[in-house]
Amino acid sequence: MIDAAPSSAPGRIRLGMVGGGRDAFIGAVHRIAARLDDRFALVAGCFSADPAKSRASGAELGLDPSRVYDDFEAMARREARLKDGVEAVAIVTPNHMHLAPARAFLRRGVHVICDKPLTATLAEARRLVALAEKSHALFVLTHNYTGYPMVRQARAMVAAGALGPLRVVQAEYAQDWLTEPLEATGQKQAAWRTDPARAGLGGATGDIGTHAANLACFVTGQAIESLSAELHSFVPGRALDDNAHAMLRFSGGAKGMLWCSQVAPGCENGLRLRVYGEKGGLEWAQENPNLLRFAPFGEPPRLITRGGHGAGPEAARLTRIPPGHPEGYLEGFANLYAEAARAIAARRDGRAPEPDVLFPDVRDGLAGVAFVDACVRSSRRGGVWVGLARA
Amino acid sequence: MIDAAPSSAPGRIRLGMVGGGRDAFIGAVHRIAARLDDRFALVAGCFSADPAKSRASGAELGLDPSRVYDDFEAMARREARLKDGVEAVAIVTPNHMHLAPARAFLRRGVHVICDKPLTATLAEARRLVALAEKSHALFVLTHNYTGYPMVRQARAMVAAGALGPLRVVQAEYAQDWLTEPLEATGQKQAAWRTDPARAGLGGATGDIGTHAANLACFVTGQAIESLSAELHSFVPGRALDDNAHAMLRFSGGAKGMLWCSQVAPGCENGLRLRVYGEKGGLEWAQENPNLLRFAPFGEPPRLITRGGHGAGPEAARLTRIPPGHPEGYLEGFANLYAEAARAIAARRDGRAPEPDVLFPDVRDGLAGVAFVDACVRSSRRGGVWVGLARA
Amino acid sequence: MIDAAPSSAPGRIRLGMVGGGRDAFIGAVHRIAARLDDRFALVAGCFSADPAKSRASGAELGLDPSRVYDDFEAMARREARLKDGVEAVAIVTPNHMHLAPARAFLRRGVHVICDKPLTATLAEARRLVALAEKSHALFVLTHNYTGYPMVRQARAMVAAGALGPLRVVQAEYAQDWLTEPLEATGQKQAAWRTDPARAGLGGATGDIGTHAANLACFVTGQAIESLSAELHSFVPGRALDDNAHAMLRFSGGAKGMLWCSQVAPGCENGLRLRVYGEKGGLEWAQENPNLLRFAPFGEPPRLITRGGHGAGPEAARLTRIPPGHPEGYLEGFANLYAEAARAIAARRDGRAPEPDVLFPDVRDGLAGVAFVDACVRSSRRGGVWVGLARA
Amino acid sequence: MIDAAPSSAPGRIRLGMVGGGRDAFIGAVHRIAARLDDRFALVAGCFSADPAKSRASGAELGLDPSRVYDDFEAMARREARLKDGVEAVAIVTPNHMHLAPARAFLRRGVHVICDKPLTATLAEARRLVALAEKSHALFVLTHNYTGYPMVRQARAMVAAGALGPLRVVQAEYAQDWLTEPLEATGQKQAAWRTDPARAGLGGATGDIGTHAANLACFVTGQAIESLSAELHSFVPGRALDDNAHAMLRFSGGAKGMLWCSQVAPGCENGLRLRVYGEKGGLEWAQENPNLLRFAPFGEPPRLITRGGHGAGPEAARLTRIPPGHPEGYLEGFANLYAEAARAIAARRDGRAPEPDVLFPDVRDGLAGVAFVDACVRSSRRGGVWVGLARA
Repeated sequence: MIDAAPSSAPGRIRLGMVGGGRDAFIGAVHRIAARLDDRFALVAGCFSADPAKSRASGAELGLDPSRVYDDFEAMARREARLKDGVEAVAIVTPNHMHLAPARAFLRRGVHVICDKPLTATLAEARRLVALAEKSHALFVLTHNYTGYPMVRQARAMVAAGALGPLRVVQAEYAQDWLTEPLEATGQKQAAWRTDPARAGLGGATGDIGTHAANLACFVTGQAIESLSAELHSFVPGRALDDNAHAMLRFSGGAKGMLWCSQVAPGCENGLRLRVYGEKGGLEWAQENPNLLRFAPFGEPPRLITRGGHGAGPEAARLTRIPPGHPEGYLEGFANLYAEAARAIAARRDGRAPEPDVLFPDVRDGLAGVAFVDACVRSSRRGGVWVGLARA
Repeated sequence: MIDAAPSSAPGRIRLGMVGGGRDAFIGAVHRIAARLDDRFALVAGCFSADPAKSRASGAELGLDPSRVYDDFEAMARREARLKDGVEAVAIVTPNHMHLAPARAFLRRGVHVICDKPLTATLAEARRLVALAEKSHALFVLTHNYTGYPMVRQARAMVAAGALGPLRVVQAEYAQDWLTEPLEATGQKQAAWRTDPARAGLGGATGDIGTHAANLACFVTGQAIESLSAELHSFVPGRALDDNAHAMLRFSGGAKGMLWCSQVAPGCENGLRLRVYGEKGGLEWAQENPNLLRFAPFGEPPRLITRGGHGAGPEAARLTRIPPGHPEGYLEGFANLYAEAARAIAARRDGRAPEPDVLFPDVRDGLAGVAFVDACVRSSRRGGVWVGLARA
Repeated sequence: MIDAAPSSAPGRIRLGMVGGGRDAFIGAVHRIAARLDDRFALVAGCFSADPAKSRASGAELGLDPSRVYDDFEAMARREARLKDGVEAVAIVTPNHMHLAPARAFLRRGVHVICDKPLTATLAEARRLVALAEKSHALFVLTHNYTGYPMVRQARAMVAAGALGPLRVVQAEYAQDWLTEPLEATGQKQAAWRTDPARAGLGGATGDIGTHAANLACFVTGQAIESLSAELHSFVPGRALDDNAHAMLRFSGGAKGMLWCSQVAPGCENGLRLRVYGEKGGLEWAQENPNLLRFAPFGEPPRLITRGGHGAGPEAARLTRIPPGHPEGYLEGFANLYAEAARAIAARRDGRAPEPDVLFPDVRDGLAGVAFVDACVRSSRRGGVWVGLARA
Repeated sequence: MIDAAPSSAPGRIRLGMVGGGRDAFIGAVHRIAARLDDRFALVAGCFSADPAKSRASGAELGLDPSRVYDDFEAMARREARLKDGVEAVAIVTPNHMHLAPARAFLRRGVHVICDKPLTATLAEARRLVALAEKSHALFVLTHNYTGYPMVRQARAMVAAGALGPLRVVQAEYAQDWLTEPLEATGQKQAAWRTDPARAGLGGATGDIGTHAANLACFVTGQAIESLSAELHSFVPGRALDDNAHAMLRFSGGAKGMLWCSQVAPGCENGLRLRVYGEKGGLEWAQENPNLLRFAPFGEPPRLITRGGHGAGPEAARLTRIPPGHPEGYLEGFANLYAEAARAIAARRDGRAPEPDVLFPDVRDGLAGVAFVDACVRSSRRGGVWVGLARA
């Protein structure tokens, strides 16, 4: 069980934020996630490219005005000189604005907790890998679904061989919020996510397809080696894909399919993973995340619940409340912050992190961007199989 | 509502059967389906290529021994001469043995009710189309899932525009019974279904992929024009595919994915269809067939049940009992026999069938074989997009 | 597996029917159930108290007009004298018309398959018990839910101690079709079911409460000894209860609750049973009858499916098709006919029935009427605990 | 949408806590709930009757040691004199220890946020009502399930007449954690909850039955006027009930049933409410709290989701993230803290709270204790109907 805030106030990690001003969705989520277990204290931020908006957001959050910045470079520079400057920074800007702030903080040894996808382009992603691997600071990518206890459970079961060698992977992430041209109304979330300049090459593929791909890799322990894809932009005038179909080949021999859509009416956040091996199958769905269906071949399927009978230490470690009391998206997100806190605490103390600390990192981010890149390349070339780029 | 046996005993259609002896699975299903609404009377059969077995099966079924045959040619010949010879024949043999008996009966004007897939090869399928279209007899292909009331409901809703122009189709049919090499144990069902000589080019694709493809086409009213596929034979030594992934392009502009598998532990008969258009989405699953989930975009999803509020005449026409009392696989199968009975009765009476009579026919069968053929061709050529063959 | 019609045509049991003319619901269900496995042949009937209607119904069913009767006494008399007279009769009239025809056939040694509840009054029920126990003929009461394979599975698991000593039983049966005064429209089913003269003392309690009570007793192997109940007639002017609440004490020490309702909007045929013992719990619901949820205490819950892994011989014996292909209400109903057929066949052959033949009988019918009687008595006396009447 | 921490750091409400030291379950939940939206700052506490444990807990939480107390009286006294003393206190002790600390803080004008049930006895509950109503401070009772957005939605729909006049209420709360005598192992949660000295008259009835009863009243807007109950202590030697059955009569004419159990294997936190009126029905279950099933009579049931189409302002107001991203128990709990924060902020500002601020209060707490009291009285007297005590 997560023991909220054992090292508490004096020990809270000083956190900054880039992006996440008023109207932002994911910035507020990061703040709640950071706060949930009381291991971080938000002390500084550059919340918007618009200085007035940044300051207003900082004021609303109760920050010391001297630590609310107009630009992230200034923030990185000054915070690095402060005795109690930020130890970590959450980067929650649109995709094309991940690389620059990440560089500014990484080079100053500030740990980076960055939203996904890693970057808007493959070239940027490669640069960020190089930067992060050169830096002494940690790089945490918030593929938040990996924080769900039952996703951890699934990964542990696959790793322990409960499914035998894997054969088939079915991943999907379906939404409906872009069924109509919402971006034309000026809705901020829709606007940047459908804009190639800010989102990058991928629309649905980048925004949610990367989550599905990451989840599949996280649970199976296999990388996607090649794929064949078809991308669609169903809404007239939309520049990026709003639906994509892909067939996948994994490094360990598994074969898969992946569907992501933002135009599937009746689907809210239908992220779902099914994995089948020689000895058993697993099913998990984000909309009911406390449940894992496990079917050992030749036996009745079992319902493993978060905190319930049959859940192992990997799930138990990231749970706060008893089974049957649902934990949700925010708790799963907070689990990545809890993992980051453990890793950061180990750095502080000059020791190796506990061996079970686990979070997606910059290489996972590169894999995600390579997934989008491959989808786009395959689709443009009529669905041929293409390999995924590597660093 | 189906009014069982309104024209009863004197009017029962005289039915023969080819195949379906002891141990057969689908033969028994056809017999129950034919019997359920009391519109058919089984009066003759050639139940096995093994004469002793055919006779034993006939005796068990209480048939007059003079109408139990050693070979289907003899049966067709003699029954055609009898005053009360069979009016229709159910062909329930393995795939490679559909064409010959169908020809024998069609050419004598006996209606054919044939199991799917239509034939083992594309060439045979084309020949059968020609034969059936030349014959005065009816040809009914038992893609039985089209008999489920809520599948009819879904088709009617799509046709009425409740979903708007279609964009995305997700079809799947997952089983687990061939996870291990069951055919090696001599189990009869597994043996012929994994044998290219009897099953044809397709394994899972032919046995269940054709069902998923047919269901997608039946509900959407669109044909599959081209596809890109990867077929897998996960069980060592298996000659045919036991899992397949495909991306689809439909004649009306919809894009789709199709997964079929016989090696997915925990899946029994997981046939599932999801269809999304500009205005709404539909979901249906065979394992809970009395329910159709309909999500008009911008409104809460609705649960339409067989016989319940919101179900239209197309569903009501094929339902026997009140909502909440589940109907299942046998009732759905029987619905095709009920449709066949209406069409045959119209022929008897020399009138056109009622305009709402609807069942899969020989052209649907050809489309299914073309689907398998295209899957195999695409997979062999590395997943390129290929067009589906036509008559 | 049910091997449909192994003893077939010459061996089919000659069945008569009392009630079940045009517009009747349950008569048609009995006919399908009798036909499904081809062990019965309907050869005679008195389908209505209205002779014209009886004859029209008989004609529609294709019966020999000489065996369609104007009254059941005449039918019983004449059929008993025929060489090929009915061996069994299905009684599908309203509740107040069960006793008289049952008596007419029982006393002539014709087996009776009678719909529930047994009778309209306790006095009648006692008389019928005496008659049935004196007769050499069999008496089968169609508490059809006991025919579902997974209900058999549940009963077998309880009997085998899989749940340990039982503690808690939760039974419910909720519908919504009488939410409004449907009887005022002349709808036939509603009219007689809400009429004390035809239905007896109980409305919802008699029509569906008896099913829930019977199911609870069938699965637990315990009788209801006493109860405390409150009956409601929510629809103004309705003479019988349309909703009832009861607390139960079982003979084996279990405690229970029972809810039945015909005025619960959104409920179709929500019959549901949950049983909890010292070692485990079971849940089953009629609307998804192929599934049994079994939770051994301290382990993850298991999903046992009809025909699937974990299902035992009691379920397997009454299943026709593979797991994942749903069987429904009609198949469950047919299972009671299949059981009756085995018992009747044993009588024919002068041997004891197979030891696993199992169906509700006249004593179960008495228990049902006693349940209604106790509910009414308790409710009238302000909810005091009352014992159930015995024979 | 909850706008986390708009009035932030300088404006955070200074919170103290009584109880909730190491090993406590609910104390940690309250702390997370208070922290989630950043409107409270925990600044003082008396975490245990054991001073060493209290201090250790305070240190772990990072509190100033001078504000960690050995006893709550001293805490109340001193904090009341501090310029920046606590404005509100969370009382999270066992039931018998609610009254005394509540009194200590209420009389000093400190707002009280108290866990349920209100007190261990009816006499205490009445005293606390008098105290709270005399005090200028607020009293918030954490019947946390009333904080779930879809519970708010349900209440609003009932109030707006979407169901018409109510007829039937089915409430249940089933767990299995006390299936065996866990209290004998010394497990702390089990020990006090099964101990009459600390828990009061009710076991399951007090611990979870009060939640089910409160939920039923909250949603229906009706009080329980009388009930008939049977309480059971299935585990040998257990002094309090671990299972209870009750029939209910509500003030507005609805009739209900309530089941609570701690010995139902396979149930985790199965709190479930179903409400039926003349025009429609609603169903909600805590284990999948983001969903509300609404069945208007005569139309297909609708699935209303938190944040989704069909959810109204009462739900929207208490939601943080988009539909399909599940919120859970902690968010629901936090919603009561958010409501409390709004009420407290209004007091600070000397204005009336916003009219939509809503939380359970001391009168709801009295109703809960009266429910337990009535259950015990009825059960002891053989299940007679008894009225619920009032203030």
